[in-house]
Amino acid sequence: MRPFQSTISLASAQDIIAAAAEPLARTETVSLGDARGRVLARDVMAPADVPPFARAAMDGYAVRAADTAGATRDAPARLRCVEQIYTGQMPVHAVAPGLCSEVATGAPMPEGADAVVMVEETAAEADAIRMFATAAVGQNIGRQGQDIRQGQLVLSAGTVLTASRVGAIAALGHARVEVYARPRVAILSTGNEVVEPGAPLAPGQIYDINSYTLAAVVAEHGGVPVIHRTAVDTIEDLSRAVDESLAEDVLVFSGGSSVGTRDLVLDVVRAKGEVLFHGIAVKPGKPTAFGRIAGKLAFGMPGYPTSCLTNAYVLLVPVLRRLGRLPAQSIRIERLPLGARVMSTPNRHQFYTVRVEHGQAMPAFKASGDITSMSQADGYIEIDADTTVVEAGTVVDVKFF
Amino acid sequence: MRPFQSTISLASAQDIIAAAAEPLARTETVSLGDARGRVLARDVMAPADVPPFARAAMDGYAVRAADTAGATRDAPARLRCVEQIYTGQMPVHAVAPGLCSEVATGAPMPEGADAVVMVEETAAEADAIRMFATAAVGQNIGRQGQDIRQGQLVLSAGTVLTASRVGAIAALGHARVEVYARPRVAILSTGNEVVEPGAPLAPGQIYDINSYTLAAVVAEHGGVPVIHRTAVDTIEDLSRAVDESLAEDVLVFSGGSSVGTRDLVLDVVRAKGEVLFHGIAVKPGKPTAFGRIAGKLAFGMPGYPTSCLTNAYVLLVPVLRRLGRLPAQSIRIERLPLGARVMSTPNRHQFYTVRVEHGQAMPAFKASGDITSMSQADGYIEIDADTTVVEAGTVVDVKFF
Repeated sequence: MRPFQSTISLASAQDIIAAAAEPLARTETVSLGDARGRVLARDVMAPADVPPFARAAMDGYAVRAADTAGATRDAPARLRCVEQIYTGQMPVHAVAPGLCSEVATGAPMPEGADAVVMVEETAAEADAIRMFATAAVGQNIGRQGQDIRQGQLVLSAGTVLTASRVGAIAALGHARVEVYARPRVAILSTGNEVVEPGAPLAPGQIYDINSYTLAAVVAEHGGVPVIHRTAVDTIEDLSRAVDESLAEDVLVFSGGSSVGTRDLVLDVVRAKGEVLFHGIAVKPGKPTAFGRIAGKLAFGMPGYPTSCLTNAYVLLVPVLRRLGRLPAQSIRIERLPLGARVMSTPNRHQFYTVRVEHGQAMPAFKASGDITSMSQADGYIEIDADTTVVEAGTVVDVKFF
Repeated sequence: MRPFQSTISLASAQDIIAAAAEPLARTETVSLGDARGRVLARDVMAPADVPPFARAAMDGYAVRAADTAGATRDAPARLRCVEQIYTGQMPVHAVAPGLCSEVATGAPMPEGADAVVMVEETAAEADAIRMFATAAVGQNIGRQGQDIRQGQLVLSAGTVLTASRVGAIAALGHARVEVYARPRVAILSTGNEVVEPGAPLAPGQIYDINSYTLAAVVAEHGGVPVIHRTAVDTIEDLSRAVDESLAEDVLVFSGGSSVGTRDLVLDVVRAKGEVLFHGIAVKPGKPTAFGRIAGKLAFGMPGYPTSCLTNAYVLLVPVLRRLGRLPAQSIRIERLPLGARVMSTPNRHQFYTVRVEHGQAMPAFKASGDITSMSQADGYIEIDADTTVVEAGTVVDVKFF
C-alpha cells in the first residue's frame, strides 16, 4: 500500500486544473432546433434587413399622415379605401391623397402611405373610412431594417444561444448555425466489484453508481458523457480503457485513485502521461488525482459515490464549462442558520450536505460512501480547512445543488 | 376587423390558465442514462441493503478491535496477516484472535473482524503487521445496509431526478425508472407571410422566428416541442393543423390572435372548443388568447416575436412546469438602479427588457416586433399597470432570462 505523501489545497488543485484546461476550438454545425444552450463559434452578421420591407405594426389603415391632419372623434377625416392588404401579399395600389388601404399587422406598406391608423381609431362607412385621430408620420409602421440592418453584427462568437438568440438567427433565415463542440467526457468506472444496474449481484459486488452520477453532471453542464464499460483492476485492462478513450476530451475514472495496492489508475496515468496532483485537502474527496494523457485531461475520482459526485461538482464542472466556453455556473445561495452543530476534520476543506427544514440548514451528511446523504440533501455548506466545529445557529451559506 | 372588447389582468389570465392545467398522469419508463431532470412517477423502495455486505471503508487491516487495545506508536500491537482481500472478492479466512487481513476500501469484511485500522496507522514487518493505534469496534467499517436498508423508501414519487438521485436508483440496481411523461407541445406558426429559415424569401415574406423561440422555451422547461408545418390563414388549414395536433397536450399558435379579419385562430378555437380569454392587459403580448380544445390547452400567442416569447415565459412556462410536475421556475433576480427613464403604457402591465451595464439596468426594448431587443437583453423588469413612468435611478428588480 502507498500512503499519501501529501495533499494540496483545494484552491491549488483548482488552479492546476484551470491552467491545464483550454477551451475547445473544435466546432460543429447544428440545426436551429438543436441550438439551444450551445455556444456560437462565429459572429453572426445580417445578410439582409429584418424586416425586409416596411410593414404595418398594427391592424388598421395605411394613410398619408397629412390627410388626417386635425382629425378627431367629432371631426373625423374621411378616406376612401382602395385595397385590403394581407400579410404575405404585395400591395397593388399606391395610396394617393384622400385614399387609404386596409392593412393587417405585418402586411407590407403600400407606396405613398407614411402612417398606419389603428383600427380602434377608425370606423367603416359605406363609401369611406372615418379616421378619428391625427396620425404622425411613421406611426405604427415597422420600418425596413428596424430590427436588424443588413451587414449588422447580430450575435458575437462566444454567445450562449438562448431562446431569443435562436430566434434572432431564425430571423436572418439561417437554418443551421456553427457552434463550439461540447466537451466529450469518457466515464470509466473501475473496480472488480462494480456491476451495471440491471444485472444480478454476486457476493462482494455492488452496483455502479458513479457512471450515472457523472454522466448526469456532464450532461447538465454542457458535456457529452461517453460511458465506457467498467474496467477491472489490472494495468492491462485500465490501459486498454485509456487507449479506447483518448478520442474524448476528458477522461474521468472513478475508483482506483486511493492508496490500495490495486489502485492502479494513478500508475496508468503516470505511465501514459503525467500526474499533476494526487490528494486534495478536502472532505469528502481527498484521494483525487489529476493529470494529462496525450493532451487530454484525466481525473481520478474516488470510488465513494458522494466523494466522486462532490468532486465532480467542485472540480469537473468548472472544467466542463471552461472547455465548452459556457459561463461559470450560477449557484443559488441562501443564508440560513445551521440547525445542528457540525464537526469538521482539521486541515480539510469540507463540503457538508444539508437539507433545508423549517428555514434551517439541517445536516444531511452520513458517510462518504452514502449516496442517500446527497440524494436527500438540498445543497451543501463549505467549512474551511481551519475550522473544526460550526455551532448550531451559525448563519451559513447554503449552496443549492 | 374585430376590435378587442376588453382585456383581463395578467393575474386573472394566470389564474384561468392554472385552473385549466392538470398535471399529466401519463408515465413512461426511461433508462437511467436518460433520467436526469425527469420526475419520478412511483416511490422507489430498496429491494436489498446498500451496501449489500459489510465492507472496509478504508484501505488497511481488518482486525478484532480487542487485539489492538492499548496499542500506540511506541507500543504497537503485532498481528499476523492471513489474507489480502480485494474488492469484488469474498474472504476465505476468518480473523481469529491475533490475526488480521489486509483489506482494500470496499472489500467485504472477513468474519471475526470488527474494525479496520487504516494503512497509515500500520507498518508491515516480515512476519507481522504493527498496529500503531487502538481501534474502536466498528471503526472504518461500512455496515451492511448503512446507506440504504432493504424495504426503505429511497425516493418518493414526484421527486425531480438530480445526479445524486439517479445515483441512488443505480445503487439499488435498477437500470430503468418510471417517470412522468413530459408535456408535448404542438407549435403552430401561422401566417401566409411566414417562411421557414433556409428557404428563399419572396416579397412580403419573413422568416419564422416563433417556432424556434417557442421550441427552445418548451425544451428548456421540460416539454417536448413538436413543430408543425406553418399553417396558412384559412379556416380550413388551421382546422386541419388543430386536428393533426390534438395528440399533443398543448397547442401553441403564434400569429393570428389579433383583431385582423384574417386572424382566424380564435375562430378555430371557438369552433372546436372554448375560448377562456382573449386579450390581456400586458405589454408586450396583449393580443393573447387561451382556450381548450378536446381537453387540450390552446394558446393563441401574438405573432410579434418578442410578444410571443414574453408570453411564452410568463404564461406557457408555468403551464409546462405544472403539467410536467416540475417545481416553479427559479428566476434569478438582482436589484439594480435603472440607467434611464422608462415610460410605460397606462393600464398595461409591462415587461421591459434591460441589459446590465456597469451595474445599471439599461433599457433594451426597441419594439414588440424586434427580436434583437430580447436577444441583446439580459433580463427584464416588470412595470405594473398603474405606473406610467419609472425614473432613472429607481432601484428595480431585474429578472434574468
